[in-house]
Amino acid sequence: MKLGLFFEPSGRHIGAWRHPDAAHAGATSSENFIRIARKAEASLFDFLFIADTNNVWEDLEYYSRVDRTGVIDPLVILTLLSQHTSRIGLIATASTTYTQPFHLARSFASLDYVSGGRAGWNVVTSMFEGEAKNFSGGAHPVHADRYRRAEEFVDVVRGLWRSFEVDAFLCDKESGLYIDVEKMHVLNHVGEFFSVRGPLNVPRSAQSEPIIVQAGSSEPGKNLSARTAEVVFTATQKMENAIEFYSDLKSRLPKFGRAEDSLLVMPGISPIMGATESEAREKYEQLHELLHPAVGISLLSTLLGGFDLSSYPLDGPLPDIPETEGGKGRQSVIVQQARRENLTIRELYQKTVCGRGHWQPVGTYTQVADMMEEWFVNHAADGFNIMPPAPPDLPDFCDHLIPELQRRGLFRTAYEGTNLRENLGLSVF
Amino acid sequence: MKLGLFFEPSGRHIGAWRHPDAAHAGATSSENFIRIARKAEASLFDFLFIADTNNVWEDLEYYSRVDRTGVIDPLVILTLLSQHTSRIGLIATASTTYTQPFHLARSFASLDYVSGGRAGWNVVTSMFEGEAKNFSGGAHPVHADRYRRAEEFVDVVRGLWRSFEVDAFLCDKESGLYIDVEKMHVLNHVGEFFSVRGPLNVPRSAQSEPIIVQAGSSEPGKNLSARTAEVVFTATQKMENAIEFYSDLKSRLPKFGRAEDSLLVMPGISPIMGATESEAREKYEQLHELLHPAVGISLLSTLLGGFDLSSYPLDGPLPDIPETEGGKGRQSVIVQQARRENLTIRELYQKTVCGRGHWQPVGTYTQVADMMEEWFVNHAADGFNIMPPAPPDLPDFCDHLIPELQRRGLFRTAYEGTNLRENLGLSVF
Repeated sequence: MKLGLFFEPSGRHIGAWRHPDAAHAGATSSENFIRIARKAEASLFDFLFIADTNNVWEDLEYYSRVDRTGVIDPLVILTLLSQHTSRIGLIATASTTYTQPFHLARSFASLDYVSGGRAGWNVVTSMFEGEAKNFSGGAHPVHADRYRRAEEFVDVVRGLWRSFEVDAFLCDKESGLYIDVEKMHVLNHVGEFFSVRGPLNVPRSAQSEPIIVQAGSSEPGKNLSARTAEVVFTATQKMENAIEFYSDLKSRLPKFGRAEDSLLVMPGISPIMGATESEAREKYEQLHELLHPAVGISLLSTLLGGFDLSSYPLDGPLPDIPETEGGKGRQSVIVQQARRENLTIRELYQKTVCGRGHWQPVGTYTQVADMMEEWFVNHAADGFNIMPPAPPDLPDFCDHLIPELQRRGLFRTAYEGTNLRENLGLSVF
Repeated sequence: MKLGLFFEPSGRHIGAWRHPDAAHAGATSSENFIRIARKAEASLFDFLFIADTNNVWEDLEYYSRVDRTGVIDPLVILTLLSQHTSRIGLIATASTTYTQPFHLARSFASLDYVSGGRAGWNVVTSMFEGEAKNFSGGAHPVHADRYRRAEEFVDVVRGLWRSFEVDAFLCDKESGLYIDVEKMHVLNHVGEFFSVRGPLNVPRSAQSEPIIVQAGSSEPGKNLSARTAEVVFTATQKMENAIEFYSDLKSRLPKFGRAEDSLLVMPGISPIMGATESEAREKYEQLHELLHPAVGISLLSTLLGGFDLSSYPLDGPLPDIPETEGGKGRQSVIVQQARRENLTIRELYQKTVCGRGHWQPVGTYTQVADMMEEWFVNHAADGFNIMPPAPPDLPDFCDHLIPELQRRGLFRTAYEGTNLRENLGLSVF
């Protein structure tokens, strides 16, 4: 079982920065980042995973009450952490919609190189329309266009990463030859969205090139994953749905000449745990108190593709939500949950702001380990992205859940290798 | 006197990686980066300065023989070094021609934040036409258009850096207010090249915002500097020219409401030094041996705006060189030197590949200190960007030249402050 740590320095719950045990301004504190990364590495997590957006939040009531306002560039955070860790993987999110592939290829290859082959790129296409307002581009492209651009973008980035064969750099002082140009491959890409000559100006890393992560669960998202991704991060709350997604995605691999184990499916999980069920339940209730209703409503509206819920009664049902051009996968998961559990808007946002669409069991360490094992053995997941709800919860995972998974032989007791591909069991290109 | 270290991990001379004492693959070695940065900080350098380009080199004979092929992203290098140093400034070059201001503002603000206020941005507009080939944009824009875009770009970046007042982040767990939205300023920029709403998603750093560095010496370059730059990096070989440039630039400041000490002029200097003149001369001759003629010719042609010199006799004079749309300042400096000193093409490239257009005195530590003092007291420079010709030369600067400057009371004996603005004596916005 593979385990990533979703790196949210003050926790998954949107009000968790207010927790009495949360570090002051922990979302921007290097000391806090380093403490979390070292703890995660000591517990043998496969990787740290940083989500990201450059979206403009126009709702000031929300904006003023969350710690997502000041967010350091993920590449900067991970480069910083590369100097305080030696084995854990470092995965950052970056969008294909408002960047150029050469820049992205170079910065991720650079992180990969200096970290000794521990980088990964989580490919997103910018689910929020507000992002367009920071990038001079007019309207935000629709979902299908974003994915068409993403397909080409990933190919260009990978092509650039493969500019040099592993042994292209001779660095031979005697002959004066620094590189063997026979082992250099000029990309010369010309496509619908990009024309990029290359080569990239960064050598191969210890793992050859960064791993590709993807999280889209729409049809174009699944196709992109099946063709290019090595780790797929999903939001699934029910094992049946997870099994269906897992088997759907794996069945698409042969079409692209890929083996089943060349792609790892890792759903998010944000469990609230305690030594007893009532302790876990108590933690869950406490989290609600950290949340201002305006924040709950605003975040829920955003996750539902910008549908404004503020005029609906808090203790009434969720109205019909039209499908939008945003992150389709998460929208439908949230709407399904509201219908299935017959939740009011307040109940829905209380559940949603915590896991924000991800699976959120509440129970003992053993119960959560049971559920994760069940998903794992039933081919619902190859592993999980762990999302601690609040800052004091990380020790629960490191000191209770992981040891339990290790006792069951489900999780490693030492890193298998020194780079991310080795630890994830992925092949080197 | 302010001193920057031009960060070229295997030296200024284009063949210096072949020096017997050069680290193997030092251009991409984190250990080498860290060693140089720590040595520079121990000698109280104001900053490390990384030049950069994403230019495509089409001349394979050249390409295969230089260590500029594998170059890690400057932001990644400086973030890495921020974790191994605590006082020295960290300045990276980034072009305004092929990036979006939001991305650039965020990555530099992030480096500034995590380094405790030590970042600077060297604004360039991409002097080499080859860069266009990596960025899907068709033809490389002409000089005047690049500078018009740069003017607006810098304004947008600075506007984004000022999105939040210093005390905007309340992080108040009790009230649940994370930011004071009254202290947030939405940019809402709409201009010729960019429309950017903002705000930026990074808080102010310990020095408030990164410093702006500029190196253009054309008329549009000098105007951009006078309006926006805090450090100007120049290539000047003669004191008279340096005095003229210095006084020209400083005289433009009042027009923009700026005081004379709000901008520091720091020419590059790549001296070859020894305990005696003959030792210095010997070092200089040795550097020539590291250079393949094809590399010399190719680099000289590139620095002259792409004028192909390969068909001219090596031991004949430099032909007439037409002015191009490339880096105009450096072109004219090199042509002037060839005429003034009546140099053959071989002699010119031997001189040029070492300093690459920058001032390159050869002499004893005392003689070089004399010259630097002369420039400094005669208002030719507020300081210098030191460019060690080859890797083993850094100790010459740290152990001989700087102590000599300190004995004369020209250079600090301790850092004045903890961030870059304090050390450079620049005001905080």
